[in-house]
Amino acid sequence: MKILRSPAAMTAWSEGLRREGVSVGFVPTMGALHEGHRALIREARLRCDALVVSIFVNPTQFGPQEDLARYPRPISHDRAICRQEGVDVCFEPTAEAMYPTGFQTTVTVPAIARRWEGESRPHHFAGVATVVTKLFGMVRPHRALFGQKDFQQSVLVQRLVNDLNLGVDIVVRPTVREQDGLAMSSRNVYLSPDERRRAVTLYKSLQAGAAAIRTGETDAKTVRSAMVRVIQGEPAMTIDYLAVCDPITLEPLPTVARKAVLLGAVRLGTVRLIDNMLAAAKQVRRHP
Amino acid sequence: MKILRSPAAMTAWSEGLRREGVSVGFVPTMGALHEGHRALIREARLRCDALVVSIFVNPTQFGPQEDLARYPRPISHDRAICRQEGVDVCFEPTAEAMYPTGFQTTVTVPAIARRWEGESRPHHFAGVATVVTKLFGMVRPHRALFGQKDFQQSVLVQRLVNDLNLGVDIVVRPTVREQDGLAMSSRNVYLSPDERRRAVTLYKSLQAGAAAIRTGETDAKTVRSAMVRVIQGEPAMTIDYLAVCDPITLEPLPTVARKAVLLGAVRLGTVRLIDNMLAAAKQVRRHP
Repeated sequence: MKILRSPAAMTAWSEGLRREGVSVGFVPTMGALHEGHRALIREARLRCDALVVSIFVNPTQFGPQEDLARYPRPISHDRAICRQEGVDVCFEPTAEAMYPTGFQTTVTVPAIARRWEGESRPHHFAGVATVVTKLFGMVRPHRALFGQKDFQQSVLVQRLVNDLNLGVDIVVRPTVREQDGLAMSSRNVYLSPDERRRAVTLYKSLQAGAAAIRTGETDAKTVRSAMVRVIQGEPAMTIDYLAVCDPITLEPLPTVARKAVLLGAVRLGTVRLIDNMLAAAKQVRRHP
Repeated sequence: MKILRSPAAMTAWSEGLRREGVSVGFVPTMGALHEGHRALIREARLRCDALVVSIFVNPTQFGPQEDLARYPRPISHDRAICRQEGVDVCFEPTAEAMYPTGFQTTVTVPAIARRWEGESRPHHFAGVATVVTKLFGMVRPHRALFGQKDFQQSVLVQRLVNDLNLGVDIVVRPTVREQDGLAMSSRNVYLSPDERRRAVTLYKSLQAGAAAIRTGETDAKTVRSAMVRVIQGEPAMTIDYLAVCDPITLEPLPTVARKAVLLGAVRLGTVRLIDNMLAAAKQVRRHP
């Protein structure tokens, strides 16, 4: 496995393969790789001839009060996982290479970024959209894989690839969960053992919402109430948002006539957890 | 010469050539081609194996009170010039293909876009930056050529290509001028015969500034005064801005120690004219 730090070397490697007709797969990460990343890497390995994983803790997507400094950076462990999974290039650009003096261009996806995570994290999605555009420019992949765990991010990336004609095939893969249902996340290490036990309540709340939809509930308020009740059963947890949304626009749905995505963010002590679940109405109503 | 309207067909054509090692040159235009465009196309023809010219009057870079509706669109004449100059593809996307329903992503280059044209035309450069990013995504050129006439635009494009790692070689070519010195522009057709005679005053103003610098003047205020005086000699002309700037950052210079760009925008009747000129100090001062 090659470890590349230089964006120019990364591009040269990838362009060389593209000219030979080799398909390049890409999994962008912030490192601290877990089973969710591993599933993305395996899927990319199956679907592409060559495989790049980037590890870059992108400072511009963190707010000033957020966890940039303490975000886990177990680089040897991350490289070992990449090696195990047959990654060809581990791309590890520096912040200086990514954002040199004079850097100023920003990519925004305003309607997708406005709500939910965007409300709690005002500049987060501009940071994500810009760094993803840059990474795609550096890596030149045919296909890039993202986890459903960050649902709003995956919708935003698909939108920006379409809107800017970046020509990268975006694949979103299901969230990988711990045995009790907690979504895998690099930030789960912040949970104390007690918080870890309580954390699954967010998943259970989404399950309650999805169950309501599956059994015929179409009123989004009622679905949301079912979700809220579960969280309220866990006194250590506070709701940031819980919402029943259109899976494409992420706007709240009044009625679940077809598909919906249930989005949730909660706080548990000092840790913020997000998760989501797709749900389809029992019967697609022809005249909603 | 191929005429392509579909972005997907454009990308497929270009990707096919890239895989064969053919270099793709690109001249993005809004049509109404004149000798300035022709010079860009000829230069591209010399430097690249295959050549794409796009013709797209981009609505998002016009303000609500501007000339989008009356902007000249002589498409047969434009295609004839492209044919004469050996263009391989004339790419003519529709506004619907460029901005389909749900489109929302915007590219901004805030520090470069803030001053000068950006002050008079608040959303202009976001429109330019976004459409250039999109056109580069659709055309996948190795190299793209821009005219120095739109100096701020050329600086912005270079900045965004660097910042977003678009991997396109940007070439800026000198402004082509009428015999009296007026910069070629598709908007010159708006000038009445009387205005046309007076229009050259902007060029003469820039010449006066450049002459002052060339003969040793280093105080930017004095240089600017020389430019202002020339414009004031033409009562039909009003100054939008005249400035002595750093050619990279476009910030105003207090002192011309090395290189400067003289930027000018004026109004003549209902027509707005812009022009610019590079100038180098007589001697580079080692301790400015």
